[in-house]
Amino acid sequence: MLNPSLRSQVEPFRVMQMLDIIHQRSREGKDTIMLCAGQPSTGAPRPALEAVSEALFDEPLGYTEVVGDARLREAVADWHSNTYGVDTSPGQVIITTGSSGAFSNAFLALLDHGDRVAITAPGYPAYRNILASLGAEITYLKVGAETRFQATATMLEELAEKGEKPKLVIVTSPGNPTGTIIDPAELERIARWCEDNGCALISDEDYHGISFGRPTVTARQFSDDAIVVGTLSKYFSMTGWRVGWMIVPENLVEPLTNLQASLSLCAPAVSQVAGVAAFGEASISELNDHVERYREARAVLLEELPKLGLDTYADPDGGLYLWLNVEKLTDDSEELAHRWVEEIGVAVAPGIDFDPFEGHKWVRLSLCTPADETREACRRIASWISR
Amino acid sequence: MLNPSLRSQVEPFRVMQMLDIIHQRSREGKDTIMLCAGQPSTGAPRPALEAVSEALFDEPLGYTEVVGDARLREAVADWHSNTYGVDTSPGQVIITTGSSGAFSNAFLALLDHGDRVAITAPGYPAYRNILASLGAEITYLKVGAETRFQATATMLEELAEKGEKPKLVIVTSPGNPTGTIIDPAELERIARWCEDNGCALISDEDYHGISFGRPTVTARQFSDDAIVVGTLSKYFSMTGWRVGWMIVPENLVEPLTNLQASLSLCAPAVSQVAGVAAFGEASISELNDHVERYREARAVLLEELPKLGLDTYADPDGGLYLWLNVEKLTDDSEELAHRWVEEIGVAVAPGIDFDPFEGHKWVRLSLCTPADETREACRRIASWISR
Repeated sequence: MLNPSLRSQVEPFRVMQMLDIIHQRSREGKDTIMLCAGQPSTGAPRPALEAVSEALFDEPLGYTEVVGDARLREAVADWHSNTYGVDTSPGQVIITTGSSGAFSNAFLALLDHGDRVAITAPGYPAYRNILASLGAEITYLKVGAETRFQATATMLEELAEKGEKPKLVIVTSPGNPTGTIIDPAELERIARWCEDNGCALISDEDYHGISFGRPTVTARQFSDDAIVVGTLSKYFSMTGWRVGWMIVPENLVEPLTNLQASLSLCAPAVSQVAGVAAFGEASISELNDHVERYREARAVLLEELPKLGLDTYADPDGGLYLWLNVEKLTDDSEELAHRWVEEIGVAVAPGIDFDPFEGHKWVRLSLCTPADETREACRRIASWISR
Repeated sequence: MLNPSLRSQVEPFRVMQMLDIIHQRSREGKDTIMLCAGQPSTGAPRPALEAVSEALFDEPLGYTEVVGDARLREAVADWHSNTYGVDTSPGQVIITTGSSGAFSNAFLALLDHGDRVAITAPGYPAYRNILASLGAEITYLKVGAETRFQATATMLEELAEKGEKPKLVIVTSPGNPTGTIIDPAELERIARWCEDNGCALISDEDYHGISFGRPTVTARQFSDDAIVVGTLSKYFSMTGWRVGWMIVPENLVEPLTNLQASLSLCAPAVSQVAGVAAFGEASISELNDHVERYREARAVLLEELPKLGLDTYADPDGGLYLWLNVEKLTDDSEELAHRWVEEIGVAVAPGIDFDPFEGHKWVRLSLCTPADETREACRRIASWISR
């Protein structure tokens, strides 16, 4: 029997395990209210589906260019330039297989074995799992309500003073799992610190487009060296299509292209066809309606949860999540999540995925589920608590 | 300006660069006869397209289970069991984002930094590029006509005697770039050697289904420890859809699932829908017709190339390629390839991609192009040689 490698001993991704449980329940005929995943229930915008429908029997849908279909690179560049008033050229855009593909390629392009990376806790678990599998040294920036769950330049400076200057910092805004949006001035300070300290900055802008009021700015407004990652999965409501992108400085285009050629050849062609149409006006209008629905789900949670005594959470400025403290109910939120899905058919994401230190006291709720179902989930949780 | 990492200094994947040139030429209105890529010109089988057409407006096409859609895992397991008479269960099948996704996940699951891997030269360039980026130590098994361009157990034993026992061996049959099919008895000896020596065996069976006479056997006939990799890209004619699979020993399912969850979440959902239909009877009949076309293109090359004095090649038993010695024309086959695409609109794959030692004397020709176009390509090469 072969032993798996040491570096494969990464933690499971519990959100995806919960999704697997939901798939399994669905095969058994059991419904679940899904508050666990950042997966819009809506599917791709109609023009994207229509574009695929037309292309299916007309185009061979073979390999695209390694860096992605030229029309899609242009659509991303235009959208990025127009949304943020920055000058982004298609030549700097690399289409990836979801933002997942962007992260692993970027990590390989920026880091050698043993290099240090600073990420926040709480934060997106795939960062630490991918980084661990690639042999990076991870330093956690423990963030909480006092910095609105976002990193600060001061934290980076303190790391440097301890002799732990990172080679790479990742900023996620709107946050996952927190939904908080970083203050533009703080993002600028971080970008400046990174430039001054030879540190790479990845700005994970996967949840851009979904804000409930605060402005979202791109890191590229503050630094030409910043690497921006984006995706069709969230605002664009196309999770399963697996298309994301990187916007990168010119000198990284070639190494990233070479890595991508060998690691993945190209992103799925059919999804790239859909992606081009997703940037069209009719799609954007449809997608903006979805944001209104996330706003409604958020309002339900903000109204109902405090009634259940669950009144400690990260204020969701945007994105698809509410990060909820459940320590009044449990000190093992993973067990709680499994009990809820089995006992009341409500799936939430165990916090330990996102925060190795405090996550056992937290869960992540998704705003993707329609308001009425979200209200029903709260009702079920209420009666679970009171029983 | 940020410097890319040392490990990102992988070589370009020249076949994909050539594809990019073809895409660029196409945008400029220039046609190219494509003999460079293992990309069937036919597109997905019709039932696969119809399945997508039906699902598009019916299913949200969100994330599938991490290990892949249950129906597709079952289709792969059934196909594998029925084709080879082995007992393969869906629980051992992990659906990946192309076989590319299978390779990087498997390498991470099997190898720690610095572990040694034996691969053949010539061989598939992405192996060495991915392995290099992950910090593996690569040992080349130089193979030629005397072993029909395949590795042997004796070569592995010789490595061990030199103190260079590998942790992983990759066997590719039908070969890329050579098309040669390994002798079943030799594959059995290799599988046995691997088991006896605690060495992992990846059997890259991406080109199975395309044989011009010789039988193809799966490594799982000889070892339960063997890791089989397969794809919808080649026999199934679905390159751009990015769906592949691994068939793995039970104890590797969990670490591979955890890695895949963080590295890619899941393979594209829409492509998995297409994939299920690709295993149906009507699809298989359509795909078997394609194999007849590859056989015709092969016959044209075997007839025409010797007339041009190009009479040294690997005898293509199967797969999609003919590995052709061009040292009578050049000692820089990459330059030759670039001249041919520019001067006569014929794209071939530079050999240096596949063999760092001898590749400058070789090119790889694809059998995917229809026989008449293949004949036209030979005509153009003939007049290029004689001018």
